[in-house]
Amino acid sequence: MQKKDSWLLPEGITEVLPEQAACLESLRRNLLDTFDCWGYQLVIPPFVDFLDSLLTGSGHDLDLQTFKLTDQLSGEMLGVRADMTPQVARIDAHNLKHEWPTRLCYAGTTLHTLGDPLEKTRSPMQIGAELYGHAGIESDYEVIQLMLEMLAISGVQNVHLDMGHVGIYRALVEQAGLSQQQEAELFDVLQRKARTELAELVDLFAVPQQFKTIFNALPKLNGGVEVLAKAGELLDIGNHDIRTALQDLQNIARKLQQDYPSLTVSFDLAELRGYHYHTGMVFAAFVPTVGREIARGGRYDNIGAVFGRARPATGFSADLKVLVSLFDSDAVSVAQTVFAPASNDDSDLSHAIRDLRAAGTRVIRQLPGQQGSAEQLGCSAILEKHDQQWLVKPLGSR
Amino acid sequence: MQKKDSWLLPEGITEVLPEQAACLESLRRNLLDTFDCWGYQLVIPPFVDFLDSLLTGSGHDLDLQTFKLTDQLSGEMLGVRADMTPQVARIDAHNLKHEWPTRLCYAGTTLHTLGDPLEKTRSPMQIGAELYGHAGIESDYEVIQLMLEMLAISGVQNVHLDMGHVGIYRALVEQAGLSQQQEAELFDVLQRKARTELAELVDLFAVPQQFKTIFNALPKLNGGVEVLAKAGELLDIGNHDIRTALQDLQNIARKLQQDYPSLTVSFDLAELRGYHYHTGMVFAAFVPTVGREIARGGRYDNIGAVFGRARPATGFSADLKVLVSLFDSDAVSVAQTVFAPASNDDSDLSHAIRDLRAAGTRVIRQLPGQQGSAEQLGCSAILEKHDQQWLVKPLGSR
Repeated sequence: MQKKDSWLLPEGITEVLPEQAACLESLRRNLLDTFDCWGYQLVIPPFVDFLDSLLTGSGHDLDLQTFKLTDQLSGEMLGVRADMTPQVARIDAHNLKHEWPTRLCYAGTTLHTLGDPLEKTRSPMQIGAELYGHAGIESDYEVIQLMLEMLAISGVQNVHLDMGHVGIYRALVEQAGLSQQQEAELFDVLQRKARTELAELVDLFAVPQQFKTIFNALPKLNGGVEVLAKAGELLDIGNHDIRTALQDLQNIARKLQQDYPSLTVSFDLAELRGYHYHTGMVFAAFVPTVGREIARGGRYDNIGAVFGRARPATGFSADLKVLVSLFDSDAVSVAQTVFAPASNDDSDLSHAIRDLRAAGTRVIRQLPGQQGSAEQLGCSAILEKHDQQWLVKPLGSR
Repeated sequence: MQKKDSWLLPEGITEVLPEQAACLESLRRNLLDTFDCWGYQLVIPPFVDFLDSLLTGSGHDLDLQTFKLTDQLSGEMLGVRADMTPQVARIDAHNLKHEWPTRLCYAGTTLHTLGDPLEKTRSPMQIGAELYGHAGIESDYEVIQLMLEMLAISGVQNVHLDMGHVGIYRALVEQAGLSQQQEAELFDVLQRKARTELAELVDLFAVPQQFKTIFNALPKLNGGVEVLAKAGELLDIGNHDIRTALQDLQNIARKLQQDYPSLTVSFDLAELRGYHYHTGMVFAAFVPTVGREIARGGRYDNIGAVFGRARPATGFSADLKVLVSLFDSDAVSVAQTVFAPASNDDSDLSHAIRDLRAAGTRVIRQLPGQQGSAEQLGCSAILEKHDQQWLVKPLGSR
């Protein structure tokens, strides 16, 4: 049952060829080194995991995106990770168990059953960093800064930062006393920014007029930092959580303005990206050329509770393949490649090749009878014998 | 349906924690850089693939070890790669299509449904290199040399190299005229080194006595280089392929003796490791402390035929997790980590931290109200203000 096109790949699944693989590896190393310089330690979570452990704290969306496998050894259901964050939270909660803040980072392939309508890939290479054990805005700000640093290193230009806070929506829903069903419906129309539907839905809620006004106004709380002042008036319903959330956003806005004066920042209080998962401040980075966010993150306190330990948590992630596609590949310098002749039993030649490689120079050794010239093999220099010595000569100079 | 022990991992599946992850990442980079210096270009094959494309040219064993998934977009059967070599062969045959030798390398997670009785893992991190487009022993020797280089860089001591040649077995079976069924039975007893069963089985074959003697003697063709001379006499049945195979092994033995005088090499002509897959010389590296081979490889010509292009091919692979477990972790130098105070609005401090990180120093910034001292966070120095200047001071010196 051999398919005719044996080289076809499943939709949204790609193989990365040498040129792009070199860029990807280079960017991967730069980013992991940067995370390391900020104190974020690399961890490598497993590619498959028990399903319920993978889906901990996540919503229905992640369940649908997760490939399921039967474990032939235990008979239990396994899942292929569609998101690495819950796995990293487990490492913090169960394995490391520090009392102090823990900083972790990771990079690895994830798999989605369906992909996103806006995403072309079903196999993002997720790279990210997570900070556990601190609840203040200083940790929110640290991960936002590190995300911006990641984008700068990736050579991404014209970054736009979009800020939100799912705590505001949570507090409103709770104070208004919405049922779980109502909350889900409201969430759905807000996500779709369907304002007419929103008005119709809110009209059916048996809640004070003030909440109806607020729910209807939420999608308009979207724009520059002035949105926060507007929200302060509109949401002045004596709720401590809402007041704190708005204050935190104000403080972050001020810090960003001070440290990144040319960064455009907007606020969107109806943005509930990752709502099932997040508990506080959320943020996403956009660029004009890509139709969706290129990096995203936020606070997701207590996700580790199910693994035995509730801890404050915040972090971000991105798809390394998307970042590398935005990278200016002309900026990658091409290393010299030296072509060495086949001649078999010349131990001086073997030593010359060994020394060059030990010094980091790429040397391709000719194979007897092979096709392809040094140039075709991408070489810019050749090893030649002059006066009993093997010397590297540029190809053009011969 | 939350399991009680949500942090348990499936059998043979592991998560890699910071200390080991740093070693693994460091070794991974060193090895990929070495492969690059030998002209082997990195490729990144996909983690899942159409099943029949994954199992191309492989045997029943690989099929049993491959996790199957239904593709919800196409309805077709996907597999999670249990071996990356066929994927890399496809990249050579279909994507690159060079007329000249192509050198490729890779590193990535693979997954096995059952694992090996001798392996503890079901998720090896396969790292390897493949050389396409050259049929002579020079390419066999190049990949053996690169494999030995990989083991040297990994700090593996007391390597023992075991050489074989599946072409000899193939030629014998063909010349004796064994049926497919007989070949499979013979293969099975040879793999199990079950000599009594071997004698009983061979006795049933309707083949000339000379072949019976040869088949029974195969397991004894196992030892130092003198085995090759013995084999030359025993297998002197006028078969060109066998003569060439033995001559090639002699030549490789001579080269190894010359270039690696202290390496112990043995020859085993009944060793059919990877038989379904390989076509010529095969080799494996052992160390006294590990009960199975730590790296293996060999020639597997024409695997790319099904992807539209038959090419000579040879290569090797290993499990990076096994290599790192043999690595002397004391040899890894620990980088300095600097602890920086939280103090919020001191822009001189922020600049000092930025400069240190840009120079590659790891700086952990204190978070307000956090637990854990600089020492507990693994820091060996601290940023302190002296005369309006932020300076790095070793922790012991305070």
